[in-house]
Amino acid sequence: MQAAGIDLGGTGIKAALVDRKRGILEQFSMPTEADKGLDHVLGRLAEAVEKIKSLTDEPLQGIGIGSPGVISLDRTTVSHPPNLPGWLTVDIAREMKERTGLTARVENDANLAALGSSRFGKGQDYDSFIMLTLGTGLGGGIIFNRELFRGSTGAAGELGHVIIDYNGLASNSRARGGIEAYLGQRFLSRNAAVAIHKEPDNPLYKRFHQNFEDLDPLEICLEADKGNQLAIRILQDAGEKLGYAIVNYVHILDIRTVILSGGVAKAGKWLIEPARISAIERMMPSYHEGFDIIYEKLGNSAALLGASSLAFENL
Amino acid sequence: MQAAGIDLGGTGIKAALVDRKRGILEQFSMPTEADKGLDHVLGRLAEAVEKIKSLTDEPLQGIGIGSPGVISLDRTTVSHPPNLPGWLTVDIAREMKERTGLTARVENDANLAALGSSRFGKGQDYDSFIMLTLGTGLGGGIIFNRELFRGSTGAAGELGHVIIDYNGLASNSRARGGIEAYLGQRFLSRNAAVAIHKEPDNPLYKRFHQNFEDLDPLEICLEADKGNQLAIRILQDAGEKLGYAIVNYVHILDIRTVILSGGVAKAGKWLIEPARISAIERMMPSYHEGFDIIYEKLGNSAALLGASSLAFENL
Repeated sequence: MQAAGIDLGGTGIKAALVDRKRGILEQFSMPTEADKGLDHVLGRLAEAVEKIKSLTDEPLQGIGIGSPGVISLDRTTVSHPPNLPGWLTVDIAREMKERTGLTARVENDANLAALGSSRFGKGQDYDSFIMLTLGTGLGGGIIFNRELFRGSTGAAGELGHVIIDYNGLASNSRARGGIEAYLGQRFLSRNAAVAIHKEPDNPLYKRFHQNFEDLDPLEICLEADKGNQLAIRILQDAGEKLGYAIVNYVHILDIRTVILSGGVAKAGKWLIEPARISAIERMMPSYHEGFDIIYEKLGNSAALLGASSLAFENL
Repeated sequence: MQAAGIDLGGTGIKAALVDRKRGILEQFSMPTEADKGLDHVLGRLAEAVEKIKSLTDEPLQGIGIGSPGVISLDRTTVSHPPNLPGWLTVDIAREMKERTGLTARVENDANLAALGSSRFGKGQDYDSFIMLTLGTGLGGGIIFNRELFRGSTGAAGELGHVIIDYNGLASNSRARGGIEAYLGQRFLSRNAAVAIHKEPDNPLYKRFHQNFEDLDPLEICLEADKGNQLAIRILQDAGEKLGYAIVNYVHILDIRTVILSGGVAKAGKWLIEPARISAIERMMPSYHEGFDIIYEKLGNSAALLGASSLAFENL
């Protein structure tokens, strides 16, 4: 059984031919060309599907699409996706049906990463888990009893905008002091810049003081691996904050497995161990049993695999 | 159809004969006599059930019991209830079956208040809502699609221990800066004491400066009703903090109706309006539609009614 998994972003479209048993068979990327408007982007999506069709002799079960913006409860429609000018409320399912003849469903990226992990990755081992995708921002998805927990309207799991300090740092969200302000790539790099600026002898300063925007959290991590104490401290600080947010997720949901995925998550032990320690410190003892934070290795494939699962499972 | 609803506390047992359609028909209280140990308290529970049997000619569907402590997923067993010395892990269902012949199920108080509101109170109007019980502490219960959301082990909804300031006030929980530290009766009164101490001319100072432990949040509310600006400020401050916690619940669960119940909640508009304002200020705009905070008027009956629902619905 095969399906098309697509990840629609403001700059690029990623697409994959996915086999339900074997995973991703082929994948490719193409520019979104979002500036050319709604109809053009829908045409690009249809092109991606046609290309996927051409890669296989089997019929496709359908199309799953990961998209920014607010997703409708029936997974047909996207509203106000950031970075896609001219999109207000778009019934992607209907548009794709007309353009490709296939049934399409849409879901947000972090939910698809959770679904992908549940069906193809580390998440297979857990009935319920909390997925955190660490990238430019911090996304979240909740798997409960092997299904996505979507809340009343489909918007559950906005885990990056959970407040850990109501007086704290602002991110681009309203939820000042939300964990994303401490942990998203943009914010982690910015916070790191402040700390690095105080140590002009540090290798991180030497490499990045003229252009902190180039500072990737992965670089901080590689420095930490070399024993750079400043780098270790930066990641430890971010990890501790993550632990507080995790306490909030666990106390509300009583779901005790946390799976990290995405770019910043590559900081691995430097981030995860401090998070585990601060979470345990603040978590009520009756929630400790079974608590764990693990790392999903599927990377960007998680969302594409999750997208295909929408089609395989008629979600 | 009738059932026994029981609320087991460290000092008192409340019990009610509940009719599924008409609600509470009769109710009474008796001392728990917890210091006399486990067997004695189980005997007291059985006495309460026998008394309820004597109040009706109909057969009872079963017994629902609200209890402190950690409740097992199958709702038979309680572990480590605070304020009940000698209780480690107790299979209340088996004990009650042996002593009364009836099927019993147990659940935590705040979850039962949520269930009671869903079946008999304001919650009847909502498929999904977040119940907050404000008393000595702050309890929580989550109703999703008309059922309790209980998480992986039955412990979901520990909403009082959700962190809003990781550097913040300590309550009796590990979750320093948890909302309970700002809003539970004990903590609200303590915080109020600090503010009141600075205004020796205020009526609240005159009445309570010799014994702040007598200061009930309801008193602060009554003063607020009289236009006492200090009282209004105290409640506004607590309400604002509550709003931040509510943002966390809503962003995680996408459940947009919050129902307040219990003693402190009587502060009504003085607490709810500031909570609504601060929640809206920090909540992502896409979550605003349908967001509301309302007050449950069932009071202590909510938990007894919820307890009986365990029996009516074979939960």
